[in-house]
Amino acid sequence: MAPKYRHVFATHSRQQISPFTQGAEVPSFVGFRNLMVLVLIFSNLRLMIENFQKYGVVICISCHDYRRQDVIRGLLLYLSVPCHLFIAYLIELAAAQQAKSALARMKRASEENDNEAPLKQSAARREFHTTWWIIALCHGLNASASLMIASTVVYFDIHHPGIGTLCELHAVILWLKVCSYAFTNRDLRHAYLHASTSPPLPAIYTSCPYPQNINFKNLCYFWWAPTLIYQPVYPRTTHIRWTFVFRRLLELTGLSIVIWIASAQYAAPLLQNSTAKILQLDLVSILERVLKLSTISLFCWLCGFYALFQSALNALAEIMTFGDRDFYADWWNVSSIRTYWTSWNKPVTNFMRRHVYSPLVGRGWSPSAAQLAVFVLSGVLHELCVGIPTHNVIGVAFAGMMVQIPLILLTDRLQRVKGIRGKVAGNVIFWISFCIMGQPLAALLYFFAWQAKYGSVAARGEGATVL
Amino acid sequence: MAPKYRHVFATHSRQQISPFTQGAEVPSFVGFRNLMVLVLIFSNLRLMIENFQKYGVVICISCHDYRRQDVIRGLLLYLSVPCHLFIAYLIELAAAQQAKSALARMKRASEENDNEAPLKQSAARREFHTTWWIIALCHGLNASASLMIASTVVYFDIHHPGIGTLCELHAVILWLKVCSYAFTNRDLRHAYLHASTSPPLPAIYTSCPYPQNINFKNLCYFWWAPTLIYQPVYPRTTHIRWTFVFRRLLELTGLSIVIWIASAQYAAPLLQNSTAKILQLDLVSILERVLKLSTISLFCWLCGFYALFQSALNALAEIMTFGDRDFYADWWNVSSIRTYWTSWNKPVTNFMRRHVYSPLVGRGWSPSAAQLAVFVLSGVLHELCVGIPTHNVIGVAFAGMMVQIPLILLTDRLQRVKGIRGKVAGNVIFWISFCIMGQPLAALLYFFAWQAKYGSVAARGEGATVL
Repeated sequence: MAPKYRHVFATHSRQQISPFTQGAEVPSFVGFRNLMVLVLIFSNLRLMIENFQKYGVVICISCHDYRRQDVIRGLLLYLSVPCHLFIAYLIELAAAQQAKSALARMKRASEENDNEAPLKQSAARREFHTTWWIIALCHGLNASASLMIASTVVYFDIHHPGIGTLCELHAVILWLKVCSYAFTNRDLRHAYLHASTSPPLPAIYTSCPYPQNINFKNLCYFWWAPTLIYQPVYPRTTHIRWTFVFRRLLELTGLSIVIWIASAQYAAPLLQNSTAKILQLDLVSILERVLKLSTISLFCWLCGFYALFQSALNALAEIMTFGDRDFYADWWNVSSIRTYWTSWNKPVTNFMRRHVYSPLVGRGWSPSAAQLAVFVLSGVLHELCVGIPTHNVIGVAFAGMMVQIPLILLTDRLQRVKGIRGKVAGNVIFWISFCIMGQPLAALLYFFAWQAKYGSVAARGEGATVL
Repeated sequence: MAPKYRHVFATHSRQQISPFTQGAEVPSFVGFRNLMVLVLIFSNLRLMIENFQKYGVVICISCHDYRRQDVIRGLLLYLSVPCHLFIAYLIELAAAQQAKSALARMKRASEENDNEAPLKQSAARREFHTTWWIIALCHGLNASASLMIASTVVYFDIHHPGIGTLCELHAVILWLKVCSYAFTNRDLRHAYLHASTSPPLPAIYTSCPYPQNINFKNLCYFWWAPTLIYQPVYPRTTHIRWTFVFRRLLELTGLSIVIWIASAQYAAPLLQNSTAKILQLDLVSILERVLKLSTISLFCWLCGFYALFQSALNALAEIMTFGDRDFYADWWNVSSIRTYWTSWNKPVTNFMRRHVYSPLVGRGWSPSAAQLAVFVLSGVLHELCVGIPTHNVIGVAFAGMMVQIPLILLTDRLQRVKGIRGKVAGNVIFWISFCIMGQPLAALLYFFAWQAKYGSVAARGEGATVL
């Protein structure tokens, strides 16, 4: 045996410090990220097993009880709502005719160059002003009627909250489109009549100047385009990639099924056995229920976000060869709640910025007052979309939007903290306030209000769809 | 009112694609990392509320029933085990004396340069060889006796598994220290006797050459130093930073309390209500219990790792002015299970490499055979540390170590996959096999074996400490 002195090797030959000790090179923690993902998966897998052991399979297609008249009324509403867009079109058609003749008269007056020209021009302008008010009134009545009718029908005549939500959302979207159509064409008409004194219009509009844009095809494109903002011309793609459309629709279908299963199997029993706790005002138990609900509502929210803003809107945009797919930004990284509201739902943000915020600031409002107005309007729309279909306008959704304002002030202040900490703190506040506490609490309250109104019998069949 | 054409602004002015669409610039997902941390915190907060609602506060200091004789026997064992290190010292002292005289005789023989010199030298060598065997026998008997006595006492006479684990761990650590002391000094002695033909010793040892290192102070330093490897000389720091020691001890205390609360409040009820499911062999329920246990065992494991390898060993090293604090590497990032076993517990890894793996390879064993030997020895030691104190040598801990071998082969193969995926897959396999499934399953089985042996009466008081 040749001794090789294996046993005397100097393992400890130099000074070293442990990785976690201050002063050591900070080690990578990527493994812990993997661990977090795994723990999330496995702990939810466990909850799924627990749920199965308690309730068995709750999901059931045939036993989903919606009333036949709900479906019929919903379909009728779905068909009738776009009519208001056509009425807006007719109003604009008349306005364009009127503007064309007014412009012709003004031109004639300036060509004749007689002494009465200023008089005639001022008469034409006065007439235009009167027309302006009439048009505004017509649009206002039309748009308001659209939203009022839809909300009334949903509130009083559609019992099923799922069908109601779809109808109400559709009505709100169309209402926003009507508003944008009216506002944009008003400004376009004004620019048309005051060509000499007005600032230039966006370059993209030159291929379809006013009043050429007031035509049925243009309107129908706006009707179906995945935007709430009317533009005579949009950036367009050259062709439809059908595989892209197919993939997006596949995602949409898959995610819809996943959300349905998640809410029927996991959220529904949870909501149902939490009503007793709300009645007793047992705060610790309510907190426990809210926290348990938060995971499932967060999951549904993320799936729903992807299904709507990535899958559905992209599929629609592809079919419409609509070029600007900027439907959302990376809202999950936001460190300020202000940024969240301007990046998660860009179609609505764009509408609010173009048709509410900017005009108000242009009229001399302060930016913060204009922002407040945007949040109030947004709160009203949120309450409409949640309160009307659940037949309980309890103001929780509105209050939820109003709470954003102090949160924005808080996270704005955190933004100014140097380094990464303020950013992380802002992001954490966003997630906690919005997804972990805010949403499940709101879902619980609307479900409770529904239960209080219709009793547990109605809830048994339809509770699942409230979320 | 000056019209500013706010409503005609071209929001959609260019083609854009959505962030999640293929071809888009991949957005940062740092916000989702924050969300994962939050969901983990809040879902466990919920489980804590649920646990409190079910069981109330289970933690109780005064009602912790350990037997008085367990404490006395444990203390006696704690005091007696280091004696074997002193016996090893006495053996080495005798060997060093013998080596000194042998060297003197050899020197005299070569100086006299007479004809009988080769004869005398060979006689001296023969005598040395005999002594070598006697010393090896003495060390073997001493070390074996140390481990045998401790294990027997713990198995038969210490009922409380917590006290038993502490005693058994202490005995194993001292056994490893005795082995290292014997092996290292054997090689040092050999080098001392064959100075002319032997390769040079590590440079760090020159300040304390053999046989000067065989003294009581040197032994006592090795006894308390945070290493299992004997070296005559270690890298040392210049002074003790008492604030550093204080902080580490504070961490150790805090984490110990946290682990105690976690196991008493969360693991104990869980383990107790899972025995029925194991008896019924209800596999789905067992899986559910294992998954529920995994979070708490993972938490305890991570806290325990930090408490032992960062806090305790660093505090001890600081007090001993021990310079090499390389007690662990970033094992949480490992993509191969082989790397895990060489980086989470460096004191044991160093021992295995220096005193088992290298010598075996030096004797001509293949590296994989030597590794197998290391894992078998490690498995035996794991079984000793878990099976003996729980009075159930059921072989699960040993089997757990043996299962590592196919897992190592699997993750080694994954390592060769190009790109990041193989690495992530390896890391995921490590976490699942070790922390999510392996540990809680082992804890459950030992707890069940304990219950089967002592019945539920014994378990009520002491189940908490099994984990």
